[in-house]
Amino acid sequence: MRVLLTNDDGINAPGIVALAKAISQIADVTIVAPATEMSAVGHAITLSDPLRVSEVQKNGDFFGYAVSGTPADCIKLAHWALLKDQPKPDAIISGINLGSNTGINVIYSGTVSAATEGAILGIPSFAISLTTFVDPDFSYAADFAAGFLPTFLSLKLPKGVFLNINVPAIAGDKIKGVKITRQGMANYEEQYHVREDPYHRKYYWLTGQKVNVESDINIDDGAINAGYISITPIHYNLTFDPLLQELHNLDLDMELARK
Amino acid sequence: MRVLLTNDDGINAPGIVALAKAISQIADVTIVAPATEMSAVGHAITLSDPLRVSEVQKNGDFFGYAVSGTPADCIKLAHWALLKDQPKPDAIISGINLGSNTGINVIYSGTVSAATEGAILGIPSFAISLTTFVDPDFSYAADFAAGFLPTFLSLKLPKGVFLNINVPAIAGDKIKGVKITRQGMANYEEQYHVREDPYHRKYYWLTGQKVNVESDINIDDGAINAGYISITPIHYNLTFDPLLQELHNLDLDMELARK
Repeated sequence: MRVLLTNDDGINAPGIVALAKAISQIADVTIVAPATEMSAVGHAITLSDPLRVSEVQKNGDFFGYAVSGTPADCIKLAHWALLKDQPKPDAIISGINLGSNTGINVIYSGTVSAATEGAILGIPSFAISLTTFVDPDFSYAADFAAGFLPTFLSLKLPKGVFLNINVPAIAGDKIKGVKITRQGMANYEEQYHVREDPYHRKYYWLTGQKVNVESDINIDDGAINAGYISITPIHYNLTFDPLLQELHNLDLDMELARK
Repeated sequence: MRVLLTNDDGINAPGIVALAKAISQIADVTIVAPATEMSAVGHAITLSDPLRVSEVQKNGDFFGYAVSGTPADCIKLAHWALLKDQPKPDAIISGINLGSNTGINVIYSGTVSAATEGAILGIPSFAISLTTFVDPDFSYAADFAAGFLPTFLSLKLPKGVFLNINVPAIAGDKIKGVKITRQGMANYEEQYHVREDPYHRKYYWLTGQKVNVESDINIDDGAINAGYISITPIHYNLTFDPLLQELHNLDLDMELARK
């Protein structure tokens, strides 16, 4: 079994090191990950600059390829250039992310975008995140990823669909199980800190917090807050079907186009 | 009527200048746009750096605010900081983008991500793109945006839904009308040019082209290629509902979590 790993926290982040350790027990692992932290880059790809690749060693052994780009760049570059003469991986795993990727955050997540790229390429893919920024212990989430992998590969997900997994940052024996969830729709209440730099120029720094977080355990954040691992099936067809007919009926056609 | 404009080609791009000219005939226009080109940034937001804002003049008049961030940053910053003491805009328009935002490109599009931010904030929003990179003439698309705006505001889109509009780059009198479409799912066949820099270091540059583009005029690219303006209703709930029950039935629950 061949597994390609990436993340958005960068190739030296402890989350991908823990994931690589667990997955390499059961599969041949190749790592192609951003050289530096690429959080909240969304589904960015690098068009206006070239990408650089360097080989990263850990403890004297080859560990993986560091790419001067985003998580989406890493998957594209691995597939179409770096590993193109090798057999396709059986799976792509992106993570383990430091911090949850739930609700509206999914659209900002570099971790999730890498799994999206995997799904676009028709390779079974999942993103996995640990829901804390403080004192992360990735070992349970890493073991869960490895334990889940055979089941995951038996799922035969439809084309263009992947899984977004979030593991609560609590002791393994406190985890209540797995919930299949929907992406939450809680909004952010944003705040910009307005400060002055040493040269008396104003700058703005984004902070913010989710408000009205759903407590329903069938929603990603609700499941996590109740102590469950959340697994959400995700796709990248963003069409809002329920509105198609209504808009058709408006007969916007010639009148508007010719105005 | 108040309209907030942004784009991903940058505040000095001709597409947003043409849009501002057309929309200011019927509304008070405020522009908050990236200071520099931000194409293919996807739904990136800037967390690890501060944002800077500068006022941009054109022909001696105040034109708008240039932000050192992404299109999504522009909408967030406008809403939560720059314009927070003013009444909410009646609409947000993102564009006019140089080049189409159709099919899978929608997920990489900074232009579309700005409209997504508008929808998140509950403000009626649309993205508009002109489907060429060569000799763009934005005047028809700009007039279409202005002509469409009153109809658009009467639509009462559901929460979290916005429109993605693509205008074919052909003469206005050749445009056949408007089609309400779904997002295409044609894949890219990517290629990386592998080159050597002046210091003999290798670099990779992404190129690629869409393959198997749908000819169905109910799909975005199909409508455009047939000479129609394409309007796709888009949302940011990425849950793939059809799989929820099947995954529930797998009973992944305790067994996997406790492995």
